[in-house]
Amino acid sequence: MAKEIRLNAFHMNTPSHSWAGLWRHARDRSLDYTSPAYWVDLAQTAERGLLDGVFLADVFGSYDVYGGSRDAAIAHAVQSPSNDPFMVVPFMAQATKHIGFGITATLTYEQPYQFARRFSTLDHLTGGRVGWNIVTGYLKSGAAGMGQSAIRAHDDRYDAGDDFLAAAYKLWEGSWAAGAVLRDKTLGRFADPALVHTIRHRGPYYQVEAAHLSEPSPQRTPVLYQAGASGRGREFAARHAECVFLGGQTKAIVRDAVDAIRRQAVAFGRRAEDIVIFLGATAIVAPTSAEARDLAADYAAHIDPIAQLALVSGWSGIDFAKYDLDEPIRHEKSNSIQSFVENITTRADRPITPRDLISFSTIGARGPFVVGDAATVADELLSWVDETGIDGFNLARVVVPETLKAQVDLLVPELQNRGRFKTAYAEGSLRQKLFPGAGPHLPDRHIGASHRPL
Amino acid sequence: MAKEIRLNAFHMNTPSHSWAGLWRHARDRSLDYTSPAYWVDLAQTAERGLLDGVFLADVFGSYDVYGGSRDAAIAHAVQSPSNDPFMVVPFMAQATKHIGFGITATLTYEQPYQFARRFSTLDHLTGGRVGWNIVTGYLKSGAAGMGQSAIRAHDDRYDAGDDFLAAAYKLWEGSWAAGAVLRDKTLGRFADPALVHTIRHRGPYYQVEAAHLSEPSPQRTPVLYQAGASGRGREFAARHAECVFLGGQTKAIVRDAVDAIRRQAVAFGRRAEDIVIFLGATAIVAPTSAEARDLAADYAAHIDPIAQLALVSGWSGIDFAKYDLDEPIRHEKSNSIQSFVENITTRADRPITPRDLISFSTIGARGPFVVGDAATVADELLSWVDETGIDGFNLARVVVPETLKAQVDLLVPELQNRGRFKTAYAEGSLRQKLFPGAGPHLPDRHIGASHRPL
Repeated sequence: MAKEIRLNAFHMNTPSHSWAGLWRHARDRSLDYTSPAYWVDLAQTAERGLLDGVFLADVFGSYDVYGGSRDAAIAHAVQSPSNDPFMVVPFMAQATKHIGFGITATLTYEQPYQFARRFSTLDHLTGGRVGWNIVTGYLKSGAAGMGQSAIRAHDDRYDAGDDFLAAAYKLWEGSWAAGAVLRDKTLGRFADPALVHTIRHRGPYYQVEAAHLSEPSPQRTPVLYQAGASGRGREFAARHAECVFLGGQTKAIVRDAVDAIRRQAVAFGRRAEDIVIFLGATAIVAPTSAEARDLAADYAAHIDPIAQLALVSGWSGIDFAKYDLDEPIRHEKSNSIQSFVENITTRADRPITPRDLISFSTIGARGPFVVGDAATVADELLSWVDETGIDGFNLARVVVPETLKAQVDLLVPELQNRGRFKTAYAEGSLRQKLFPGAGPHLPDRHIGASHRPL
Repeated sequence: MAKEIRLNAFHMNTPSHSWAGLWRHARDRSLDYTSPAYWVDLAQTAERGLLDGVFLADVFGSYDVYGGSRDAAIAHAVQSPSNDPFMVVPFMAQATKHIGFGITATLTYEQPYQFARRFSTLDHLTGGRVGWNIVTGYLKSGAAGMGQSAIRAHDDRYDAGDDFLAAAYKLWEGSWAAGAVLRDKTLGRFADPALVHTIRHRGPYYQVEAAHLSEPSPQRTPVLYQAGASGRGREFAARHAECVFLGGQTKAIVRDAVDAIRRQAVAFGRRAEDIVIFLGATAIVAPTSAEARDLAADYAAHIDPIAQLALVSGWSGIDFAKYDLDEPIRHEKSNSIQSFVENITTRADRPITPRDLISFSTIGARGPFVVGDAATVADELLSWVDETGIDGFNLARVVVPETLKAQVDLLVPELQNRGRFKTAYAEGSLRQKLFPGAGPHLPDRHIGASHRPL
């Protein structure tokens, strides 16, 4: 039997996310992003559709590559303002029961001791529904905000990530041993100090000497997401990630990436199925394909070309203000997201131009771009799953809330009718929902488990 | 007409807060602190009583002075575990409309750029209901957790605080000028980049070169709370704080502290009434004074002496494990909360002993300890207000939820009947509720206002 696919709503605490300019659409409610009702509606809609999670992107800094200034980003709301993703999760959790929350957080600007507490607290309060999308930060403007004169070099960022995670695993998995928590009112013993261990981490980037401040939460370590797709990024993902978020404009590119990550994971002593792989996708669904095409044309008219290029300039480190719209994009050296630059410049059939990046298309979406009635969209998405080995999709925000509502009301039932989507949530934590048969904690073969007390 | 008093519920994201051991009481629900329902009930109860705020303490580290180890703290739940206070605020905000939230956060381990965004985000999502209790961190164990070999010296911590706040004011007040946000769908302009300024802060402790990541929230700068009461701490409070949280075992001590802070504030160009002063207090109220005394005796039997001394050892830096219970406390040198040591050793009428610190009393409470029917408790609390110049109280958690519920159901109506407590919330942000006639932002005469664009 073909496997059930996974779907996340891909969102961000900002008025404009993957498709710049859609906030200007008359029916779009993105400007309400500062209101709890906005997030409650998002989470309840996604949970009504039995989606696996709300995956929250984050950016820490301003997009200032385009034209050498952040002016376009500020004026056109290019992931600006960018509010803290953690703070919206409790609002969404309070209004839902099952859906998970993937939160992007940049380890570069955190300390494991404090950071581990924040995640443990949220894992407690959500009943084990949180995941951490591990990013290392690539915007020079973010570093300047944090008082640093430069960002770390690309591979160096991943070395720091390995070090950060080692410290975090020790806090989450190794500090409070199983059985440490007693909560015994009669004996007056909350915990057994002999089972609460001081972590002594002396890494090249991070040092921690302390016991974890929080008692163990339902999952201990949150579900770990990762999206880096460079060579070093994939190695990092294969070692740590339980969920990987990929981009990719062709099935061949995606299949190669999936195979490489799973192969590497197996080489690290994990199983291929220990990693759930989500591909970014944009899906515009309507009762009929004609209506969907009309919608897509309407939405496309709202893409803001300058904003979209400012966004992609920030990701790639390439200043598209210096390009003509139809000029082939060269493979420039950059300290930004390497894999992104490789992806957009290595497509075989023809050169990619800035115009491709501002158009609704698989290239512009950096993943499947699908328009049609539910059957058409389901056919297309399932073909990507079946031909590449991915497990599902992070569905990009287009017009809020109608794009997601149509996916929930039309696409999900279609997938369910084909036996390719769950009809109820599994019980348990986010990890248990993502990995049937798993427990709430990291599996023993995960590197994080090696930091448990003997 | 005598002024209306202010009341906060003083709480913490931990099973045991000001009075150690009460979590063992059969009716106490503190062990539910990891559940959203616990926080929703707290906030709704406090709002039912028209309290001004829920004031959340925090501790970042373990209490390891007592006996030279953290074992007592871990075993007896001495503010351990200590979960992140930010994460419970959205749960409480979602379930309420008016009540404010004072969140303790240690600036020592934060960077202004990231921290300012977190508070702006929460101020947006709560509709302008958040305050920041500025603390500088005093536990060596917290520093070790953060990879630092030592904590900053006491006065140095306040210098760093001045520097941190200067950077934060620039981000909150100075980056996005009034009128910068357009949100104009028709023109496609979210903001005017000419009115969004890059902050260039080159301080001795903190450096920021960036625009603020968040658009201005209802209050911009959250309401600023501060609790330091050493000489340097008071100077810091007089410069920055809008709300001050004091301890003090006698009215004379409290009156002197109140006068000193207000005088210093005036010397800094502020007004005496620009600072709302809360005194810590413990109030056990029941329908009759006899019932209240029975309750207090029952609660007192649940104080855990070792835990309470471990707590006070952590605050003071004095290892009370080395004292007999009836041995006078000496004034020892320490790098901890200076004013606390001064307070407990300078009471004139007799020497203070550890036994005083583990007893339900004004000394043990480090502020009024009041037991009785509503009239008795109101008389006593109002006498502190009228004789010291404070504005109200941070009411300590004793048994959750019944202590607070009794305060709300019995004490608040009594105060209302006397015309000494509001009968409805004022409209507007937390700042507007605390300062009648004020706007949502810092007043022009506050030091933070000097960082606004010209």
